[in-house]
Amino acid sequence: MQTNIRIVLVNTSHPGNIGAAARAMKNMGLSKLFLVEPARFPHADATARASGADDLLQNAEVCDSLEQAIEGCGLVFGASARLRSLPWPLVEPREMASQLVSEAAKLPVAIVFGREHSGLTNAELAICNALVHIPCNESFSSLNIAAAVQVLCYEVNMAVGTPVLEADDDSEIATSDELERFHEHLEKTLVDIDFLNPDKPRFLLRRLRRLYNRARLEQTEVNILRGILTATQKFGRK
Amino acid sequence: MQTNIRIVLVNTSHPGNIGAAARAMKNMGLSKLFLVEPARFPHADATARASGADDLLQNAEVCDSLEQAIEGCGLVFGASARLRSLPWPLVEPREMASQLVSEAAKLPVAIVFGREHSGLTNAELAICNALVHIPCNESFSSLNIAAAVQVLCYEVNMAVGTPVLEADDDSEIATSDELERFHEHLEKTLVDIDFLNPDKPRFLLRRLRRLYNRARLEQTEVNILRGILTATQKFGRK
Repeated sequence: MQTNIRIVLVNTSHPGNIGAAARAMKNMGLSKLFLVEPARFPHADATARASGADDLLQNAEVCDSLEQAIEGCGLVFGASARLRSLPWPLVEPREMASQLVSEAAKLPVAIVFGREHSGLTNAELAICNALVHIPCNESFSSLNIAAAVQVLCYEVNMAVGTPVLEADDDSEIATSDELERFHEHLEKTLVDIDFLNPDKPRFLLRRLRRLYNRARLEQTEVNILRGILTATQKFGRK
Repeated sequence: MQTNIRIVLVNTSHPGNIGAAARAMKNMGLSKLFLVEPARFPHADATARASGADDLLQNAEVCDSLEQAIEGCGLVFGASARLRSLPWPLVEPREMASQLVSEAAKLPVAIVFGREHSGLTNAELAICNALVHIPCNESFSSLNIAAAVQVLCYEVNMAVGTPVLEADDDSEIATSDELERFHEHLEKTLVDIDFLNPDKPRFLLRRLRRLYNRARLEQTEVNILRGILTATQKFGRK
C-alpha cells in the first residue's frame, strides 16, 4: 500500500533538498519519488543529504511534466505554503493522510511539492484534487521543502498505523498486597526514624500513598524501596 | 505560553543543522533555542540554513551543560531514535505535545535532542522525565536532527491550537533543579546507610530516577521525601 504513495517534487532548485526529502520519505516508510524537471539531478549534494536513502534516488522517476508524474493517481494533494485566495479545497496534514491512505489501498496517490521559492503555479494546483497546508506561524510560513516532506510523510506514516509503542520492558506491576506490605514497612520505618508520630493523623501516609500509587510501582521497584527501608532500619542499630 | 517551550540541542556537530532547526522552530511559532556545547557556533552554515530565522540564532542560549539548559523546567522530554532497552517512559510525539503544552501554561518545559550520530547518553536521558520516539521505518530510523525538530514542533503547534484538559489540582510540580537536589540528597543518604556503593555502577540510581520522574513529583512531595532523607541521616547519628 505504501508503494502506492508517491512524493512528487516539481522543479526543485537545490539537489540537497531532493536528498533530504528522500531521507525523510524512507524514514517514514515511503519509497516512490518522482522528480519533475529537477534543476540538477543526479548530484553529489543529493546523495550526501540522502544519508543512506540512495536507493530512493536511484529509483526516482524523472519526468517532463507534472501530468506524467501523477499519471494513474486516484487522489492528488498539492502542498501549499500559503492560504491561497484560490478557492480550492484545503485540508490539514492529518486529514490529508487519512484520505490518502484510504485511497492508496486501491490506486496510486500523490503529494506534490512545488519550487523552493515560488511553490506550485495555479495551473499545477488546478491539477490537484485538493491543497494541503501545514498549520504554522503565518508570519514565517515557508517551510524548507524537505521539512514539509518530513511532516506530511510523518502524518502518512501515523495514518498507516504503526504498531503501538511497547515499552520493551517485561517488568511486572506490583500487586496490591505487595504494595500493602511496602506501605506497612514504610510506616514502620518512618516511626523508627522519628519522622512519623504514630498518634498523629494520617495525612503524611496518605500523601505518600498517593505518590506511589500514581507511579504504579513495579515489583523490582518495590524490592528496591523495601531494600532501602531495611538498610535504614539497620542504620540506626549500628 | 510558547515562550515557555525550549528546544535544546546537545553537542550538535553540523552548524547547518542548528540553522535548519531554528527555521523549523520559527515556522511552528517557537523561539527559545538552547545549545549545549555546539561544535561550531555561530557559523555561516547555521545562518544560511536558518533562512530568515536569524533572530532565533542571535538569541540562542549557549550552555555548558544540559542541566543548565533545562534549569527551572517542569517537564523535559528526550528525543530518542531507538526504542531503548532502558526501561524509561516512552511516548509518541502527539502525546508529548499534549503534555508539554499543558505544562507550559505554568512552567518552562523542554525537548532535548542529542548528537547527530549518537543521540543522548544514558546519563542525559536519565535527567529527562520521559522519552519521545517518532514512529518510523525501524530499519531506517535515524531522522536528520532538524527533521526531528520539525516533526516535534509541528505536533506542539497542533497541540497549541487544541484546548487542553487541566488537571483540577493546584499543586505545584517540582522544577528540574529541585528534583536534581532531591536526587543528590537521595544518593548521599543511600551511601550513608550503606545501601549504595559509590564506586558501583549507577543502575540503582537510574531505576530510582525513572520511578520518581514517572510520578512527576510535586514540590510538597519533594519536601516530604527530603524530610524523610534528613531524618534517616540523623537516625544513624543517634
